[in-house]
Amino acid sequence: MPTFQPVRGMRDILGEEAQDFTCIINNARETASLYGYREVITPHVEPLELLSAKSGEEIRQRMFIFKDLGDRLVALRPEFTASIARLATTSLKNEPKPLRIFSTGTVYRYDEPQRGRYREFWQSNFELIGSTKPEADAEIILLTNNLMKTLGLQGYAFKIGHIGVIRGILSQDGVDEKTQNGVLQRMDKKEYVEALKLVESDKCRVMLEGLIAIKGNDWLDVVEQLQSYVAGYEKAKTAVENLAEVFKLVTESADLTLIVEPAFARGLEYYTGMIFEIYIPGLDIALGGGGRYDKLVESFGGESIPAIGCAHGIDRVAIALQTQKITLAAKAEKKVVVLPINEGMRSEALKIAQKLRVAGVTAEFEVMGRKMTKALEDADKRKVDFAVIVGEQELKEGTIVLKDLTSRQQNTISIDKLIERIKK
Amino acid sequence: MPTFQPVRGMRDILGEEAQDFTCIINNARETASLYGYREVITPHVEPLELLSAKSGEEIRQRMFIFKDLGDRLVALRPEFTASIARLATTSLKNEPKPLRIFSTGTVYRYDEPQRGRYREFWQSNFELIGSTKPEADAEIILLTNNLMKTLGLQGYAFKIGHIGVIRGILSQDGVDEKTQNGVLQRMDKKEYVEALKLVESDKCRVMLEGLIAIKGNDWLDVVEQLQSYVAGYEKAKTAVENLAEVFKLVTESADLTLIVEPAFARGLEYYTGMIFEIYIPGLDIALGGGGRYDKLVESFGGESIPAIGCAHGIDRVAIALQTQKITLAAKAEKKVVVLPINEGMRSEALKIAQKLRVAGVTAEFEVMGRKMTKALEDADKRKVDFAVIVGEQELKEGTIVLKDLTSRQQNTISIDKLIERIKK
Repeated sequence: MPTFQPVRGMRDILGEEAQDFTCIINNARETASLYGYREVITPHVEPLELLSAKSGEEIRQRMFIFKDLGDRLVALRPEFTASIARLATTSLKNEPKPLRIFSTGTVYRYDEPQRGRYREFWQSNFELIGSTKPEADAEIILLTNNLMKTLGLQGYAFKIGHIGVIRGILSQDGVDEKTQNGVLQRMDKKEYVEALKLVESDKCRVMLEGLIAIKGNDWLDVVEQLQSYVAGYEKAKTAVENLAEVFKLVTESADLTLIVEPAFARGLEYYTGMIFEIYIPGLDIALGGGGRYDKLVESFGGESIPAIGCAHGIDRVAIALQTQKITLAAKAEKKVVVLPINEGMRSEALKIAQKLRVAGVTAEFEVMGRKMTKALEDADKRKVDFAVIVGEQELKEGTIVLKDLTSRQQNTISIDKLIERIKK
Repeated sequence: MPTFQPVRGMRDILGEEAQDFTCIINNARETASLYGYREVITPHVEPLELLSAKSGEEIRQRMFIFKDLGDRLVALRPEFTASIARLATTSLKNEPKPLRIFSTGTVYRYDEPQRGRYREFWQSNFELIGSTKPEADAEIILLTNNLMKTLGLQGYAFKIGHIGVIRGILSQDGVDEKTQNGVLQRMDKKEYVEALKLVESDKCRVMLEGLIAIKGNDWLDVVEQLQSYVAGYEKAKTAVENLAEVFKLVTESADLTLIVEPAFARGLEYYTGMIFEIYIPGLDIALGGGGRYDKLVESFGGESIPAIGCAHGIDRVAIALQTQKITLAAKAEKKVVVLPINEGMRSEALKIAQKLRVAGVTAEFEVMGRKMTKALEDADKRKVDFAVIVGEQELKEGTIVLKDLTSRQQNTISIDKLIERIKK
């Protein structure tokens, strides 16, 4: 039998990284609670039809698709939004708007594996359903900011664009929606030459080329440039105005670093408005991102419901924390091993271990049946703080032997004082 | 476009049930920490060869199997143990024993859906690798007891058996391993007549029939009966002695209700020793279970490493909590909506919302752009506690209007006092 490895592109998350994951997820859950987002849990497997409805060719081609034993065509979710949009048109249909929904878990994309890009990866996901207002766009940015800030990440920046600007230009110049999707897909990959090649109209191509060149950190300046640049394009103009409102709200209420890039695009086809991604210096993969998708919910169920959402890549946030040498894992509590002096004392020793755990102390019980010296050697190796040695004689007097494995001191103390002493 | 539903057998977990899930998982994680179990995160998708190696025909037939885009034959994990055994023979191979490992997440089995049985379900999973001792068996039972107890479940009982007793009898009477597996599978389903039919030897069949009849709550009594019953079967005798040691350890160190059923079997083929399941009155599905699997790790990697583990069904524990009317969800904190009196006050109102969140108050910001009366109506409907109304005049004086939506009282108070007032 060969030694098994994880499936290519997937991985085991071990040691401190696993602790970091739990901390990041708890942090996201705390953020969700503070902003009034309810948690929902949806299946990892969804009908293919649901997942492919509006996600775009790009993602469709990278899905894990299969038939279940009932011959249903299903896929592993490549993202959360389709599932949440499904909920908004079914179980949560009659709930008052806005709906604020939080989810966390794994998603799946068959990409070429590289650092920070896995075929199974973890996300925390926030959706705000029911509002067209820039306040909603601002909220999604602000909660992302809250998450990054409370994790202690430094120097992060929001790259922000607006799908309405690009589509506004393309549609006014007669580019059909399918071609628009193709253009956006290439722009997402920064394949600008290929993107421009798809545009037949010379005027539109020049216009798009100019748009790509407009970017900067000063949102007021970029918006001003844009306003005059898209002056003849009604829809693009409205999009720029919308973007300006979002910028105003977020910069007036929080201290953010912005990178305004109106020609920036994202892989998912369903975006209709503001889109953003978040980066830290020295790491060229986005830690998260999101945007407005006003047509998605409607495409699932009839009613027109505007929405905006974002997802944060837990694997990538963990890399960012490592890059910035930020330790999240709660400083380990004191660790204790409980050792019966002989087989006859096992039950009594177990009782003492239970007592410690009830008091919130991490207590490992000796389950290997090793001799005292061996067990103590092992405890040293694993950097345990204390050994509690349970012997017959001592127990008769209500005491145990506590060995401090750091100072090497050993004392006989009463069981009642044990917890107090360890916690000290 | 039709309305989408989850894939058959899978489900959305919403509202309070989602909160319960988070609480149960946090509880399991806390138990893991107190018993010294480290958390690891393994992929939901594993090589089919790994998952089918030792799980048994029964589970193999119910797996979600497919090929990924690289033509790899993979499956959704039907349980955690194979993945953890994989780790024990690879990444964690050189770690000192015992290994104590905790995991949580979803697993997949294509079963006929019914209450408490889903095709995607959640587990918390504990594995203790490296010890043959009954202390290890006792630890797995005790930590399960800890989990059930801290959740507040009442009247639960441990059904306990030992695969070594059944296999000891069958093998001594010349029943080959494959037939043994078949017998155990049927016994797991309580298809005793069919199980007995598979046994050719009359002597063995009668022996097995008698074994099925031996059961009871008093472990000392059942063990005594068993000892004389299996007197002529060496391996079965050793198994009974082992079981007696486990019973002694758990009953002497904790207060447990036991149902001893030596002929009870579990669906997984890899068990070799003590097995158990946990039940509450009035619910005939197990909330969790586990057992000893001393040959599994060896079958993956060469070295012989004994192990024991257990899993708890989060979905079923949630049902048990509902059955016993136990509310876990932390009593909701005070909920606040922040309403700008007009569009011009949005950024200032956002700032105040941020301030509340930093102080740990759940603050929903008005993102619908509704008039004050509409927004307040909505807040009432959703049982919000307070509305913070941010107006121009008040703000100039460093105040806001706080409306208590329960008492209907409205006061102008200073922003500095706001948090204190809400938390009161």
